Amino acid sequence: MDRPILEHVLVQLQNALERDDLQGAANIIEAMRPADQADLFAELDEEQQVALLPEMAAGDSADILEELDDEQVAELVAALTTDDIIRIVEEMEPDEAADLLGDISPEQAEAVLRGLEDPDEVRPLLIHPDESAGGLMTTEFLALRRRMTAGEAIEAIRRWQPSEETIYYLFVVDQHGRLSGVANLRQLIVAQPTTLIMDIMDSEVLAVQAGTDQEEAAQILARYDLLALPVVDASRVLLGVITVDDVLDVLEDEATEDIQRMGGAEPLERSYLDTPPAIITRKRIGWLLLLFVGGTLTGSVMRLFEAQLQAVVALAVFIPLLIGTGGNAGSQTIATIIRSLATKDIEPSDAFWVWWHEARVGILLGLGMAVAAFVRAITWDPNPALAVSVSVSILALVFWATSVGSLLPLAAARFGVDPALVSGPLMSTLVDATGLFIYFTIAGIILGL
Amino acid sequence: MDRPILEHVLVQLQNALERDDLQGAANIIEAMRPADQADLFAELDEEQQVALLPEMAAGDSADILEELDDEQVAELVAALTTDDIIRIVEEMEPDEAADLLGDISPEQAEAVLRGLEDPDEVRPLLIHPDESAGGLMTTEFLALRRRMTAGEAIEAIRRWQPSEETIYYLFVVDQHGRLSGVANLRQLIVAQPTTLIMDIMDSEVLAVQAGTDQEEAAQILARYDLLALPVVDASRVLLGVITVDDVLDVLEDEATEDIQRMGGAEPLERSYLDTPPAIITRKRIGWLLLLFVGGTLTGSVMRLFEAQLQAVVALAVFIPLLIGTGGNAGSQTIATIIRSLATKDIEPSDAFWVWWHEARVGILLGLGMAVAAFVRAITWDPNPALAVSVSVSILALVFWATSVGSLLPLAAARFGVDPALVSGPLMSTLVDATGLFIYFTIAGIILGL
Repeated sequence: MDRPILEHVLVQLQNALERDDLQGAANIIEAMRPADQADLFAELDEEQQVALLPEMAAGDSADILEELDDEQVAELVAALTTDDIIRIVEEMEPDEAADLLGDISPEQAEAVLRGLEDPDEVRPLLIHPDESAGGLMTTEFLALRRRMTAGEAIEAIRRWQPSEETIYYLFVVDQHGRLSGVANLRQLIVAQPTTLIMDIMDSEVLAVQAGTDQEEAAQILARYDLLALPVVDASRVLLGVITVDDVLDVLEDEATEDIQRMGGAEPLERSYLDTPPAIITRKRIGWLLLLFVGGTLTGSVMRLFEAQLQAVVALAVFIPLLIGTGGNAGSQTIATIIRSLATKDIEPSDAFWVWWHEARVGILLGLGMAVAAFVRAITWDPNPALAVSVSVSILALVFWATSVGSLLPLAAARFGVDPALVSGPLMSTLVDATGLFIYFTIAGIILGL
Repeated sequence: MDRPILEHVLVQLQNALERDDLQGAANIIEAMRPADQADLFAELDEEQQVALLPEMAAGDSADILEELDDEQVAELVAALTTDDIIRIVEEMEPDEAADLLGDISPEQAEAVLRGLEDPDEVRPLLIHPDESAGGLMTTEFLALRRRMTAGEAIEAIRRWQPSEETIYYLFVVDQHGRLSGVANLRQLIVAQPTTLIMDIMDSEVLAVQAGTDQEEAAQILARYDLLALPVVDASRVLLGVITVDDVLDVLEDEATEDIQRMGGAEPLERSYLDTPPAIITRKRIGWLLLLFVGGTLTGSVMRLFEAQLQAVVALAVFIPLLIGTGGNAGSQTIATIIRSLATKDIEPSDAFWVWWHEARVGILLGLGMAVAAFVRAITWDPNPALAVSVSVSILALVFWATSVGSLLPLAAARFGVDPALVSGPLMSTLVDATGLFIYFTIAGIILGL
C-alpha cells in the first residue's frame, strides 16, 4: 500500500485508540492485508499494541506477529496472558508458531504448548535451530501414498482444506513415511480418477536434510525454480516442507546481512528507524574500534619512515590519494567476489583461478592509474623522481589491493567465516598499512632516501 | 548438484565431444535438471556449445538458453540457423522468448517470429522494456470468465494443459478482458461443480501496470507472499502474469547489482570467471579514475596546510588513521541506509528523521572513538595539545561521516539515482577530503599554528 494511504489509515487508527475504541481500531486493522496490517501495527507504541492484540480476530493477530521481527514479537508476547497467546498461536502456521515459542521463556512456551489443540504439529519443530532447513519448514503438509488413486487424493485434499502455500506440490511417501515422489495438483485433476499416484508422480524429487543451513536450502529452491522443497531426516523420512514465500524472506535477509556486514556493522534485528541509536551504536562500535586498532598500524608505518617524511614533506601530500586508490580497488574486487560466493558462482576451492583473474585485472587497472598518477604528480610538483615514485607505487598498490581483495573473502569462506565480515573496512585497513609500507619503500629507493 | 558430481559428468561429456559423438553428449545433458544442464553447458567452449544446441531436444535447448546470461545467449543464437532458433524458441515461455528476440538482430528476430506457430503470444511482449513488469511477465495464462462454473473452469484447465508455473492462481476477467478477481486451483476443486466463478473468486486482487519497474513488482509479490502477480494496462485489461520464480531471479540480480555498485564497480553481465579481465577492468576503471580525481582533493587540502605540516610533522602520522575511521563510520551508515531503502524500510521523504537518527549515533560513536584516539595519541607522542586535537577531530569526523553517509544515498534516491552508486568509495573520497580539512582546521586552532 502506498505511504499516503497508510498514513491516512494510521490517523483513523490513532483516533479510534484515543477514544479508547479498541474494537473500532481492531476493525480498521482487520480490513487490510497482512503485510499492511503489520506496517500499521508497527507504528503504534507498545502499550497500544499489547491492548490491541487480544481484541483482534486471532487469525489477524497471528498474521501480524508472523510479519514482525522476532525481538519485537518476544516483547509483545511476554505482556499477553497465556490464554490470549494460545488463541493466537492456534491460528499460526506450525513453523511460525515454533519460531515464536523459541523466542519466549521456556516456561511460558511449555504452558502455551499444553493449551494447544494439536501440540504435536509444533513440538517437533522446536528441536531444529532457527537458521536450519528444519527451522524454516512447516509440518502442515499432506503426504499422499503411492497406491492412492488420483480420485482418492483429490477427495483427501477436499477434506483436508489446507492453507494456500502448502497445496501446490503434493509429496508422496511409502509405508515407512519415506519420501518417494512428488505430484502437483494439476497432474491430479488432469489424470483419470482411477490412476494410481505412483503412475503420476515424479520420483526424481529434490530434498534437503533438516540440519541443512537455511540459506543453502533457499538457494536450492531458487536455483531449481521450485515452489516447495521437502525436508527429510537421515533415512529420508518426510518431516516437513519449505515453501517459496519463506525462501523469499530468507534470501532478502541474507542479502541485507551481507550488505550491512560489508559496511562493517553487525546486522540490525529490527527495522532501521525502530532501532534506538544506542543499539545501532553498539552494533557498530566494536568494529570501529577494532578497525581503529588495525588502523594504528598505519601510524606505526608512518613513524617508521618519519625521517624520510621530514626530508621530503611533499611525500605526505600523496598519502591519502594513494591509500584511497588502493582501498577503492580492493573494494571493487571484494564486492564482486563476495557476491559471486553468495550466488555460488565461485567456490573457495577456485581460489587460484580467482586470484589469477584478479591479478590480471589488477595489472591492467594499475597501469591505467599509474599514468593518471604520474600526470597529476608532475603538475603538482615538478619533481620527476617523486612523480615516478608515486606512479610506480600506485601500480604496486592496485595490484596488491586486488590480490588481497580476492584472497581475503575466499580464505574467510574456506575457514567458515562469513566473507562479508572481512570485506570493505577490514580490507581497507589492511591495505592502508601495507600500502603505506609499499609507498615509502618504493619512494625511498627511487629518491635515494 | 554438488560440484564433484558435476565435474564427473563434465568429464564424460568432454569425452563424448572428443569422440565427435554429439548425440551421446546431448543424451548426457538431457538427463539432468535445467539449472544443472546450464552449468554443465557453460563449461564447454563456444564451438562445442553451438554444435550441441541443435542436437538436443528443443525443450532442453530452450531450458538451457533460459538459464544463461543474455549476452551469452545472443552470441550463441547468432551462430545458429534460423530454423534451429525457431525450433528452440517454440519451446520457450513467451517472456523468455521475447527476451531472447530482444537480444538478437531485428532482422533475425523478425525471421524467427514469422516462423513461430503462435507469434502473437510473443509479439506484444517485445514492446515492453526488459526491466519493466511488462518485460518480466508471461502471456501464457488462463483467464477465467466470471460466469463460468467451477466445473467448466476445471474442464478448461484439463484441455489447456498449462505449464507448471502459471496454474496456481487463475485470474478472472470481465467481458472486456479487465481483471476482476482471482481464484486458486484448490478453491475450484473444493467447490461444487455448478458454483459460479464470481462466487468463488476474491475480487480484491493486487495488480501492477506494465510500465512498473520490475524491482517494484518483485517487492510487491514478495511483500504479500504471492505466487503470481497480474500485469494490467491503464484500463485494467489483463496483459500477463509475473510468477514467483522470475521474481526470485530479479531480487537476486538487484542485490548483486547493489553489492557490486557499493564496491564501486559496474555490475558484470555474466558470471565472474567467464568475464575476461579486460571487461572487468573496463567496468572498474571509470569509477577508479573518477574517485582518483576526487581523491586529488585530499592532495589539495594537504598542500593548503603544508606550512602547518612542515611545522608539526607529527600531524601527518595521524592522517591515515583519522580519515580511515571517518571512512569506516560512513561505510557503516551508508550500508544500513542503502539496504533499508532497497527493502522499503525507509523512503527518501524520511530524510530528516534518518539524519536525526544517525546524528545521535554519530555523537555516541564519536565520543567512544575520541577516548580511544586520545589514549593512542598520548602514548605515541606525549604532547597533550596534539592528542586533544586528534581526539576532537575524530569526534567531529565521525559525526560528519555518519551525516554524509545518511544523507548522500537519500539524496541520490530522491533524484532517481541508484543509491548504491554513491556509496562506499564515493562517500569515502568525499569524507577523506573534508575530513582532512576538519582535522587541519581543528589542529590549527588548538595547536595555535
